Amino acid sequence: MTSEFSAERLYEDLVEHKHIIPVGVPGIFGRGAIFEDVLRRFDALVSRVAEKDGAVVMAFPPTLDRKVLERSEFLDSFPQLAGSVFSFAGTDREHGQLRDAIHAGQSWESWQTMTGVVLTPAACYPVYPSFTGTIPENGHLVDMQNWVFRNEPSPEPTRMQAFRVREFVRVGTADVVVEWRDMWLKRGVELLRSLGLPAQSDVASDPFFGRGGRMLAANQKEQKLKFEVLVPVISREKPTAVCSFNYHQEHFGKLFDIKTPSGETAQTACLGFGLERCVMALFRTHGMVPTEWPKPVRERLWP
Amino acid sequence: MTSEFSAERLYEDLVEHKHIIPVGVPGIFGRGAIFEDVLRRFDALVSRVAEKDGAVVMAFPPTLDRKVLERSEFLDSFPQLAGSVFSFAGTDREHGQLRDAIHAGQSWESWQTMTGVVLTPAACYPVYPSFTGTIPENGHLVDMQNWVFRNEPSPEPTRMQAFRVREFVRVGTADVVVEWRDMWLKRGVELLRSLGLPAQSDVASDPFFGRGGRMLAANQKEQKLKFEVLVPVISREKPTAVCSFNYHQEHFGKLFDIKTPSGETAQTACLGFGLERCVMALFRTHGMVPTEWPKPVRERLWP
Repeated sequence: MTSEFSAERLYEDLVEHKHIIPVGVPGIFGRGAIFEDVLRRFDALVSRVAEKDGAVVMAFPPTLDRKVLERSEFLDSFPQLAGSVFSFAGTDREHGQLRDAIHAGQSWESWQTMTGVVLTPAACYPVYPSFTGTIPENGHLVDMQNWVFRNEPSPEPTRMQAFRVREFVRVGTADVVVEWRDMWLKRGVELLRSLGLPAQSDVASDPFFGRGGRMLAANQKEQKLKFEVLVPVISREKPTAVCSFNYHQEHFGKLFDIKTPSGETAQTACLGFGLERCVMALFRTHGMVPTEWPKPVRERLWP
Repeated sequence: MTSEFSAERLYEDLVEHKHIIPVGVPGIFGRGAIFEDVLRRFDALVSRVAEKDGAVVMAFPPTLDRKVLERSEFLDSFPQLAGSVFSFAGTDREHGQLRDAIHAGQSWESWQTMTGVVLTPAACYPVYPSFTGTIPENGHLVDMQNWVFRNEPSPEPTRMQAFRVREFVRVGTADVVVEWRDMWLKRGVELLRSLGLPAQSDVASDPFFGRGGRMLAANQKEQKLKFEVLVPVISREKPTAVCSFNYHQEHFGKLFDIKTPSGETAQTACLGFGLERCVMALFRTHGMVPTEWPKPVRERLWP
C-alpha cells in the first residue's frame, strides 16, 4: 500500500486524516476517533490472544510514588528520560511572584518544588511493590495498560513523550519467567504478522545515559536480556520497535524483596506492546483509511 | 446496602476486595480488574446515553504543553494543584551527583530542571488550542476521556492525585452553550439515578488559592458558573461530587482566540464524570460485589 517511509510523511498523513491532533510541544498530541478505535481494537485482540493465560488485570495511573522510582535504579541508567512532578507550595506573596513571572512570560521554575510523585517511566514499574514478600507456587502474571512518560521531545510521531503500553509482567523462578518470555516473543510476532505487518524480532538494548552507557548497552545485548519486535513505520532500513521484551533476572526481585516459595530471589520479565506504535504501523502498512484495509486484517480487528 | 459512610471504611473495603491496590503515596493507587470493568461499563453507558449528540471523540495524554497551562490562567487560581514536569538535563559528572544523592536517600531536586510539559490540570484543557480560529455554525462538541492530575495527597479514596474524567466540551454562542449545559445537568442526574444512586445537583465553587480565593469562589457561586452532581460516598452529610459542570463564558474563547461565525468571542462549557468517583459511589451504594447488585443496576451496566 505505502511507498514512502519517513517521519515527516507519517506525521503529515496522520495529521491530514485527523488521526493525531498536533499541540505545541513535540511528542504530545491528541488522538482522533479512528485512531482511538483502532487502538482499542488492537488492545482487544491482544486480550483475546492472551485470554487463557489467566493474567490478573490491574491498572495504574500515569503518576508513580517517587520512592518507587528512587528504589528502582531507573535514574542510574536513564536520568534524561525520567520526569518528576513539581508543584507550588508557597505563600500568598510567593503566589503573586509566580503569577507575575508567568504573565511576564518569564520562567516560573523557582516557585516549583518536588512532590512525592513522578511520571511512570516504564509500564511495569508501578506493580513491583505489590509483589514484596513470598510469591505463590505459580508466581504472578499481571496484565496492565498504563501511560508511560519519556522526556524525549522529537518530531518523529513514533517517538512520543506520552504513550500507552499494554504490558504483561511475569514473576517466578528463572525457568518459568524465561519460558514465558520466549512463548510471548513467538506469539507477539505471530499476532503482528496476522495483521499483515512484516514483523521481525531482534536482540536490542536500552538508551543508557552517559559515557558508561555504551558498555551497559553492549552487555545487555550480549546477555540477550532485551528483545524487540520491529516493523517498518518511519523507515524501511531502521524498523520501529512496536513490542519490547525485558528479562530483568533478579533486578526487581532484589530491589523489592520478592521471594520464591523456596526462599530464593524471584526473577521477573515483562513484555509490552507500544499501542500507539502498533496503530501507526497499521496505518503506515495498510493506509490511513481502515475501511479500505485488507479483509483478513479487518476480520482480525473487527471480529 | 451500606450503613457506614467514612473515608477510612471505604478505603478499607476497596482494598479488602482488591478494587484498589495501595502504593506508598496517598491518592495514587492501582485499580483492580473488577474496578476497571465497572469503570469501563459506566463509561460505555455514558457513550450510549450521549450517542445521538454526535460529539467528536478525541483522546489526549496525561501531559500537556506547558504553554497551554501558562496561557490558561489556571496557575492564577490553583497553583497548589498544578503539577509541572521536571527532568535531568545535566552532564555525566552531574549525573554522578544525582545518583549519589538518590543512593544516599538525599534530595535530588537540584538536578532537575523544568521541561516543556506539565500534567493535565483539568480534562478539558488540552482541547482548547485546537479550536483557535472561527468555529463552524453549530460550534464544536468534543467527547474525551483524559487522566487528570491534582497535587492534593489525601487519605480519602475519593480525593485522588490522578483520576480519569469522561469529559464533554461545547463551544458556541452563549445560548447554545448554556442550553447544552442545562440539558446535560438533567441528563447526568437521571443517568446516575438510573443506577440507583441518590444523585442531587447543586451550585458549587472551585478551591481557589489564597486570601483572594474566598471571594472568587463566592462570585463563582453567585453567577452559577459551576454545578455539581453529588452522591454520598464517604459521608452522608457531605456528598461527593461525581459529575461537574463548568460554564466558562468567554474565558477560553478569549485566551485561545476562538470566534463565532459572526465574529464574537465564542463561549465554552464542559461537563465531566469523575469515573473513579462514579465507580466508588456504585460500590458504596450497592456493595463491593457487583454480581450482587440490584437487577436494574446490573441491566444498565451489563446490557
